[in-house]
Amino acid sequence: MELDRLKGILRQTRVLNGERRENSAEHSWHLALCAAVLAEHAPPGTDVGRVMRMVLVHDVVEIDAGDAFCYDTAANQGKEDRERMAAERVFGLLPAEQGAELRALWEEFEEGVTPDARFAVALDRIQPMLLNFAGEGGSWRANAITHDRVLARMAPIEQGMPEVWPFVVRLLDEAVARGYLAPAPSALP
Amino acid sequence: MELDRLKGILRQTRVLNGERRENSAEHSWHLALCAAVLAEHAPPGTDVGRVMRMVLVHDVVEIDAGDAFCYDTAANQGKEDRERMAAERVFGLLPAEQGAELRALWEEFEEGVTPDARFAVALDRIQPMLLNFAGEGGSWRANAITHDRVLARMAPIEQGMPEVWPFVVRLLDEAVARGYLAPAPSALP
Repeated sequence: MELDRLKGILRQTRVLNGERRENSAEHSWHLALCAAVLAEHAPPGTDVGRVMRMVLVHDVVEIDAGDAFCYDTAANQGKEDRERMAAERVFGLLPAEQGAELRALWEEFEEGVTPDARFAVALDRIQPMLLNFAGEGGSWRANAITHDRVLARMAPIEQGMPEVWPFVVRLLDEAVARGYLAPAPSALP
Repeated sequence: MELDRLKGILRQTRVLNGERRENSAEHSWHLALCAAVLAEHAPPGTDVGRVMRMVLVHDVVEIDAGDAFCYDTAANQGKEDRERMAAERVFGLLPAEQGAELRALWEEFEEGVTPDARFAVALDRIQPMLLNFAGEGGSWRANAITHDRVLARMAPIEQGMPEVWPFVVRLLDEAVARGYLAPAPSALP
């Protein structure tokens, strides 16, 4: 029942019809099915079933810590500490062995070093990018985010889904061309 | 991007704070983590990773077919045909091999015969039951559903999570005692 609360944690990204912000529970579901569908683009050695578990659990600390918009530097101050405390409490509700297993998956995601975590992080980047593009700018436009910042945020896709990276670069260029995304300040005449 | 639409399909069950109805995407996420956490209660031979995939995909046909409230006989007329047509279209969006694999998982869930499907169906029953109990009656009370109908709906839990069945029976008795759930008509004096 505790997990139910993640359905009330709102992200900046909007669902496709634009009616409302996406919550972290449905976002996590979306990532898990993206993992299944995009499995062929995972790095060699990826265990896709494990990635699915990882993305299902990757945001549960937000039950206590909330979702910090990735482009909001102030909101991200102290995020690590808040999430660590949240992990203590939330995973601590489970029997020790179960809690430790799920917490380890969350930590692996946060570190983003193993092949499984790299693929999971890449999915966590590409899903909001696709929603923002399909939503004609979505949370990029609403928050005046520039191309350089989105490109930097998407960088983990280059390692986590290498074949997909050129598509990401093209999509972001196209987003600028269509006015969905503001150009980098340095790119202004 | 097509999957995003499942976030707009509303169930009768409400989220725990009662503010709004649950959607089928976040419900599916909840089931997948329930599968992980309740794995020890699965029947022998259950592949929990496979069950997680199954519950993640079990409702995607609702993108076209909508969610029919399980206690609404009229709304359930023709449901099978609507869902079969939805499956054709939705799974048909994927490359053939991928579409066939996910569709087979959905069909296995619908048939509810294999150990994996039995566990998945049991999870799909117990999650709304727990939400309704925690919500002091929730969609049971809102729709004047009686104890006999809920007990019949929960019956698959007896095979899919045998150890948990006595808990379900006790919880439903307690729901009647607390006035969350109306007694069966035959139980009235």
